[in-house]
Formats: sequence, structure tokens, C-alpha cells
Amino acid sequence: MNLPVIRLRPKAEARAIRHGFPWVYSDELVTDRRTKALAPGSLAVLEDAERRPLGLVAVNPGSRIIARVLDRDPEAVVDADWLAARLRAALAHRAQLYDAPYYRLVHAEADGLPGVVIDRFGDAAVIQSNAAWAEALLAPLTEALCAVTGVATVVKNGAGRARALEGLPEETVVLRGGVDGPVAVPMNGATYMADLMGGQKTGLFFDQRDNHAFVQRLAGGARVLDVFSHVGGFSLAALAAGAESALAVDSSAPALELAGQGAAAMGAAARFATRRGDAFDTMAALAEAGERFDLLVCDPPAFAPSRQALDAGLRAYERVARLAAGLVAPGGYLGLCSCSHAADLTRFRNASARGIGKAGRRGQIVYTGFAGPDHPQLPQLAESGYLKALVFRL
Amino acid sequence: MNLPVIRLRPKAEARAIRHGFPWVYSDELVTDRRTKALAPGSLAVLEDAERRPLGLVAVNPGSRIIARVLDRDPEAVVDADWLAARLRAALAHRAQLYDAPYYRLVHAEADGLPGVVIDRFGDAAVIQSNAAWAEALLAPLTEALCAVTGVATVVKNGAGRARALEGLPEETVVLRGGVDGPVAVPMNGATYMADLMGGQKTGLFFDQRDNHAFVQRLAGGARVLDVFSHVGGFSLAALAAGAESALAVDSSAPALELAGQGAAAMGAAARFATRRGDAFDTMAALAEAGERFDLLVCDPPAFAPSRQALDAGLRAYERVARLAAGLVAPGGYLGLCSCSHAADLTRFRNASARGIGKAGRRGQIVYTGFAGPDHPQLPQLAESGYLKALVFRL
Repeated sequence: MNLPVIRLRPKAEARAIRHGFPWVYSDELVTDRRTKALAPGSLAVLEDAERRPLGLVAVNPGSRIIARVLDRDPEAVVDADWLAARLRAALAHRAQLYDAPYYRLVHAEADGLPGVVIDRFGDAAVIQSNAAWAEALLAPLTEALCAVTGVATVVKNGAGRARALEGLPEETVVLRGGVDGPVAVPMNGATYMADLMGGQKTGLFFDQRDNHAFVQRLAGGARVLDVFSHVGGFSLAALAAGAESALAVDSSAPALELAGQGAAAMGAAARFATRRGDAFDTMAALAEAGERFDLLVCDPPAFAPSRQALDAGLRAYERVARLAAGLVAPGGYLGLCSCSHAADLTRFRNASARGIGKAGRRGQIVYTGFAGPDHPQLPQLAESGYLKALVFRL
Repeated sequence: MNLPVIRLRPKAEARAIRHGFPWVYSDELVTDRRTKALAPGSLAVLEDAERRPLGLVAVNPGSRIIARVLDRDPEAVVDADWLAARLRAALAHRAQLYDAPYYRLVHAEADGLPGVVIDRFGDAAVIQSNAAWAEALLAPLTEALCAVTGVATVVKNGAGRARALEGLPEETVVLRGGVDGPVAVPMNGATYMADLMGGQKTGLFFDQRDNHAFVQRLAGGARVLDVFSHVGGFSLAALAAGAESALAVDSSAPALELAGQGAAAMGAAARFATRRGDAFDTMAALAEAGERFDLLVCDPPAFAPSRQALDAGLRAYERVARLAAGLVAPGGYLGLCSCSHAADLTRFRNASARGIGKAGRRGQIVYTGFAGPDHPQLPQLAESGYLKALVFRL
């Protein structure tokens, strides 16, 4: 292999890369004409300013993350075997954790496959190749995925803004096998219906699994409200744990339809109801009608997806907390989630507590949770862990 | 009731108190001769500088936390009924969470009983009255505790530095019933032996229960090392989850004796071993001997109990991580815990990652956990949450 060489600027921090930081930003690199001409996804050897090799990287001259470290060994060969080795390491961890093959199999940088997300649904898998190098190597990656896991169906889900940052088109296609309607996913004793082709992200949010499990401990005999329910993540978990009733609120009719199918598959349809509508309006209407719930969970979309959106996002989280707190019965529980990178745990907790206070309520925090263990993090990127779940007792 | 009145200084922050902050520091209060003369634990009405009442407080003129808010209602009467109402609210939450009556029943400020910790062990309870007001009301508190929970035995555990800060003596005595040897505590399928009279804290660390449960998911078939094991928290949990073997290391012979009794009670004595010694020396000796473990957990005492001790404490956490990482088999798991208030999650995580790096290893973070839900927190004090547990996969 005779790979191109790219080089850090003299003042760039090579130490972070040596200690495992996986990214090079465009302003840290000597971007001469030759580097700019590299095709997106090209492999290259990264050197420090003193020409010492730092590792094998994938380059995307059009991205702010101009290089992603694939291997500390600058002479590594990224082929089907290399991909299979990464997949086997990822699979070993999930096989240790889960009895059934439904989980996030690959969580990008932390699993050594930068920008690549793979969710597994039994004998099907959904790949998000959110980095140019993975898009370029999609064929051998799919090959290795089938060989290592034995899945028969592979979908490429190309939705989401991550791909646009890499200059990749949006497209969702079946790469192997076939998809014949939603897939039934067993999780925490509940059944979820995942639409692998049309759903948000890969069709299901595996990241909330352990937070669902915690909420189940509070659900016995409870009247439950699940706001921003998607396919019923918290409400179906609560029903599986003996909730008296659950109402799911979402603006998406297809998501609520899948939630209803899940409840039916669990034999819990009689305890489950859905209401389509704006979450804020619906919570206000429920309050107006004097409705109260023993357990209420709000899992909204990312209100603060970027630093620019932080202030507005925190106000939105505060408003969610205020409206929701007014609907919780005395001694009841309120779960509040954020999947915003920019809103760290402290800011999110403070916004939530302010909202609860403005509703005239007081709360104890009884639980702080993050994404589950099939969503590992590099210590170097852990500060930006996106998912936070808080449960208050009011 | 004609209670004394104490008053905030003009520049003191009354808003925080109104929003639920439970403490007044001595430099925020007008400490005239009358206030200084109040007996430790006296009840008083707290007013802001404009003489508006803020609530009912307990005063300790000798403590840096000179007043603790007991009730937002300045006319509340703190008697056996008041204490019983607080205990009933605390009990309702634990009864929702746990099948068996073994848990932290009262976690101080967050449960509305400032400075009071009560752990329950079946029909026995251990009280830590770490504030002067609670020491003064210990008789009605014990009365209410027995009435609300039905416990027959009550121990007052007066160890620990919190009492010294309040000017209270160290003493551990049986207040009700009797203690006849260690108590067997069922938790996560394991059996722990708790010494209610002579143990650290109240005899058992209930706060780690959910972290034990997470580690159990990694324990099947594993060779386990439990460093700073106390009575075997992580090792007995791992054995209950099918670990091949577990070795507990601690400097306390009585703690290891209790761990061995727990393993025997579980029928797991043949898979369990203990080694008494300094944790650092023992880890170095095991490395020297070429020993490797699939799952290793270190749960040391608070290395950074105060801000002054922070730097030295973080170095100690780094050293623990470095020594431990060298003992983990490839692909194995390393759990690292901190119960230091001063070392926040970010600092502790960074120190741990540095230590792992210095051992020449790399790790993903697969889990971040805190104290369990029977250890609730006030949102206003949540930043100082003491217990953090990280699990790395190396």
C-alpha cells in the first residue's frame, strides 16, 4: 500500500490523537492542494508536524472533521478482514449483555468504526454510514456484517443531518435480503414494532432501553402518560411492568400506529390509548381537563442540537418540565429526557428543575441515566454524551 | 409555638431558599448574641432581610451550615406526627421500588429530614442523626420510625465525620430491640452479611445496588477481582450472576470475614476467595504473578473527601486505574468507583482514563452510574452527588 500522507500543522495537538482522540479538525491540518484533492473517504497516513506517523485515517476534505482515525497502526490494511475484526469485537460485547439479538451492534467511534452506526433486529441489520470512508467501503462492510453476525437482511438508512455534513446524499435502500413490514422487537418484556425502512433513525431507539427498565420499577398499577412517545418506548415498557393504563402522545400518526400494533402484540391493547397532536398543546389540554398521572415521561426530540440552539433549547426543556409537572399526581414520578449534545447534564437538570418549580411543584431526583451499554463512548468524547434521562419524584 | 426568629443578612440570597435550597451558611445570617446563644438543634423561624418568613429551620450556631430548612411552612409543628409524615412519604417510594424491606429509607435533605440517614435491614433500622436537631429529637424520631415501618430494632450509628462538624459525639448504641450478630441482607440475588453495630457507615452500602446489578450483566463465566471489597459488594453480586470465581481484596479482616459468610450463605464458598492486604500492593503483586481477570472492580474509600484533597485524590484514582487496568484480560471489563464529593464525574472519568492510558490500554466507557433511587437528591444539591461508577471495556 502506498497511501497519501497528511500532516498536522506545527501547533496542532498531536498528543490528543496519541491518547486516543479520534478526530482531526480541518484547521489542524496542513491542507495543501494535494490534500484538498483527495476523494472523500480516501485512506491516508496521518503524521505529526515532525513527520512521525500517528495512524491510519480516513480523509474527507469537505468536512469539518477532515480526518478520522481508523487504526493506530499506520500500516493497517482496511479490508474485509479488518472490518470483520472490528465487528467481532463489537458483537462479543453485545452477546455478553443481551439474551436476544436486538441491540446497537456498532456505535461509531467507540467501536472503532468512525461514523458507522449499525442496529441489529434479529436477522436484519440497519447501517447508517455517516462518514464518507464507510460509504465508500459499504460493500465489504455489508459482506463482513453478514459473515460475522449471520444477518440475512441489511438496510442502509441514509436519513439524518450527519450525512449532509459529510456531503453524502439521503437515501434508504435494502442492500441484502428483503424487508416485509415492521419487525417485532422484544425489549424489557415489551414488544415494539420497528419500521426499518421509514422510521426515525434506524426504526427504534435502543439507547433508552435501560431508562425504560428503570421506569418499569415505578410503573406497577400506575396511570402513565408517554409524551413524544414515538413507537411507545416508555408506555409499552410500563404496560409490560403492570401499569394500569398508558396514553401515548405523538405528532406522528405512523409512529402511533406502530405503538398500537406493539400494544396489541403484547396483549395490552385494552390498557393502551394514543392521542395524535402537538405535545405542548396536548399537555395543556390534559391539564385543562383535570387529568393527572402517576408516571409521566417526556422524551422530546433534540431541542438543543447545537451550541447556537442551546438557549432556546433549554427554554423548551423548561417548558416541557413545567407543563408535565402540572400533570403529575402528588407523590408521582416525572421522567424527563434530553438527546441534545449541547445541553449537558447540569444545564438540562437545572432547566428541568426550574420548570418543575414554575409549576409550583418540588421534586427529588431519584434517577439519572444515559444511553445503554450497547452505546459505548470513547472517554475522550464522553463529555458530549447526548442522551440524559432524569426521573423526579414530585 | 413562639419560636425564635433568625434573619438573613441583607445581601444573602433568599431566592435560593425560596426555590428549595435547604441550607443557610453561617456567613449569610445575622448572628447576633441571641442567635449565638441558641442551643444546637433549636427550631427557629427564618426570615429574609425584609422580615418575610422563609420557613421553619433547625439552628446549630456552631456549624458552618448554621440553619437547615425543615419546612417551608414557618408555622409547622415538628412533632411525632410531622416526623411520621416524612417517614411515610419516604417509605412509599421505597415500597414502590423494592420487593423486600432492605434499602436506604431516609436520605437526609432529599427526604425532608436534613442530616438524617436511616437504612433499613428487614425488621431492624440504623439511624445516623448527623444534625443536632435530629439528635435532640431522636426519641420521637425512633418512635415514629417504629410506628411507620414496624421495625423492632433500632440502632443509632454515631460514627463518621459528619457528626463532628455538628459538634456531636461518636457513639453507636442500640435504641430499641436487640442486635444478635450480623444480619443477612438479600440484594440482587446475592446474600450480604451486615454488621449493624461495628460496620462502616450503617453496615452495608445500599448505594451501589444498581451498579452491582449492572456488573452482574458482565459477570457470567468471568474470573472476577473485587478490590476494596468491604463485605463483598461486587464479588458476591458477580457470583450470584454466574461468575466462575471471585477474589475479594480488602485491608479489613472483619469485612472479609463477613464477605466469606455471605458467600457461604449463597452456597458459593467454593468459588470465592479473599486476600487481606493493601489494595495497591496486592494489585501489584497479582500483576507480578501474571494474574488476569475478565472483570475487575475497584470501589475505594473517598480519596478526595474535600476540595483541599482533590489533587491528591485524583492522583490516587489515576493510580488505582493504572494498576487495575494492567490486570484486566483483553476484552475484559474494568469498573471504577468514586465516592468523593469533590471529584465530579468529569474529573473522575478523566483521571480514570489517564490511568488506563498509562497502563498502555485503551477503553470504551460502557456504563456510568450513580447511587441508587433509594438515595434521592435535591436538584439544588445534585451537582455534588458523591457516588460515581464507571465501567470500561478494555
